[in-house]
Amino acid sequence: MAIYPKSLRDLIDCLKKMPSIGEKSAERMAFSIMNMDIDQIKLFSQSLLNVKNNIKKCKKCNNLTESEFCDICNDNSRNGETLCVVESPKNVILFEKIGSYNGKYHILNGLISPLDGITPNDIDIKNLINRVETENIKEIIIAVKPSIEGETTALYISKIFENYPVVVSKIAHGVPLGTDMEYIDALTLELALEDRKKISDEK
Amino acid sequence: MAIYPKSLRDLIDCLKKMPSIGEKSAERMAFSIMNMDIDQIKLFSQSLLNVKNNIKKCKKCNNLTESEFCDICNDNSRNGETLCVVESPKNVILFEKIGSYNGKYHILNGLISPLDGITPNDIDIKNLINRVETENIKEIIIAVKPSIEGETTALYISKIFENYPVVVSKIAHGVPLGTDMEYIDALTLELALEDRKKISDEK
Repeated sequence: MAIYPKSLRDLIDCLKKMPSIGEKSAERMAFSIMNMDIDQIKLFSQSLLNVKNNIKKCKKCNNLTESEFCDICNDNSRNGETLCVVESPKNVILFEKIGSYNGKYHILNGLISPLDGITPNDIDIKNLINRVETENIKEIIIAVKPSIEGETTALYISKIFENYPVVVSKIAHGVPLGTDMEYIDALTLELALEDRKKISDEK
Repeated sequence: MAIYPKSLRDLIDCLKKMPSIGEKSAERMAFSIMNMDIDQIKLFSQSLLNVKNNIKKCKKCNNLTESEFCDICNDNSRNGETLCVVESPKNVILFEKIGSYNGKYHILNGLISPLDGITPNDIDIKNLINRVETENIKEIIIAVKPSIEGETTALYISKIFENYPVVVSKIAHGVPLGTDMEYIDALTLELALEDRKKISDEK
C-alpha cells in the first residue's frame, strides 16, 4: 500500500528532481505547499511554466533574458569597452551582486574540456570573436573557475586574441578573505605566492 | 536594474516560500528547473495544482486522501481495535515507514495549547470520542511530541476516556538509539530513569 496519496507522491517526486533535495526535504516542502493558499500555488505552478517558456538567451552575450537582448546589453550607461567572460549565466548574477563591475559580459555556455569531448566549437567563442571585431572592446576579463577546464579555456581565448588590439586579463586567484590559512590547498597558496603584491612603497 | 529576468525572479520568490529555502538554494533550484525538459516542468506544474485540488482529509481519521476515506481506514487487514493518535498526517507517514504498526490512526490536527489559544475544541477530539463509541476500539496509543502541548493533550484524552472500556497508553520517552549519553537533556534522562525496564528475570 502506498504511504502517500498519488498527488502528493507525484509532487514529492518532482521536488526530488532538484539539486540536493532528498526524500525528507521533498516531503517537508510538499507539506508546506499543501498549506499554501490556492493563489500562491497557482502562481508557483505558472511561474514554473513561464521560466521555461519565456526565458531565452540574449542574442549578443547569451545571458538570460525575456527579450531579444538582455538588460545588461541594452544598458547604455554600462562600459561597453570591457567584457567579462564567464562560463554560465549564474556567474553573471554573482558579479552583478557585488555591484562594482560596470562593464558588459560574454557567456561561453561551458568550458573547453577535451576529456569530456567539449572542444572550442562547443562553447560560444565564435560570437566573442565577432563581438571583438565589431564592438569597440578594449579589454576581455576572463572570469572562469580555476580548474584545468578553466585554465585551458583562458589560455585558448588569450591565444585567439594575440593579434587583436584587445587586452586579455584573468581574475586573480589567491587566498579568499575570511579563511584560515591552514584550510587553503597547496596549489592556491602557490598561486597566491606567485601573484604577490608589494605593499610597501616601490623602492 | 533587476538582476534576473522577471519569470526567473518570480520562480525564485515562489521557491523561497518553502521551509528552509533561502535565496541561494532557491536560485540553484530555479536554474536546475530551467534545465529540465518541458514535459518534466509541466508535470511539476500540474502536480502543484493537483496536491491542492485533489487531496482532502479522510472523513474518519483526518489522514490525507484523494477519496472519502483514506487507504489505511479502508484496509480491512489492519487491526481496527487499536488507534494511534497523532498530531498531523506527517506523523502517520513516520509510523507507516517503520512498517511494524498494523493498527489504525486518528489525527488530531493540532495539540492543546492554552498559551496559543488552542483549546480541546480546536482539535479533533470530537470524532475520536465518536469513533471510540461506535467502533470496536480497545486501545488508544497517544503518540504526540513530548512537549507541554503534547503532555496536556495526552492527559486530556486520558481523562476523557477514564470511564470508557478502552486502554489509553502513550509511547515511551527515553534515550534514543545511537546517541551519546552526554547529549541527552536532563528531563529526558529523568523520564528514561523513571520508565526503566527490568532486564534480569523477575525475582
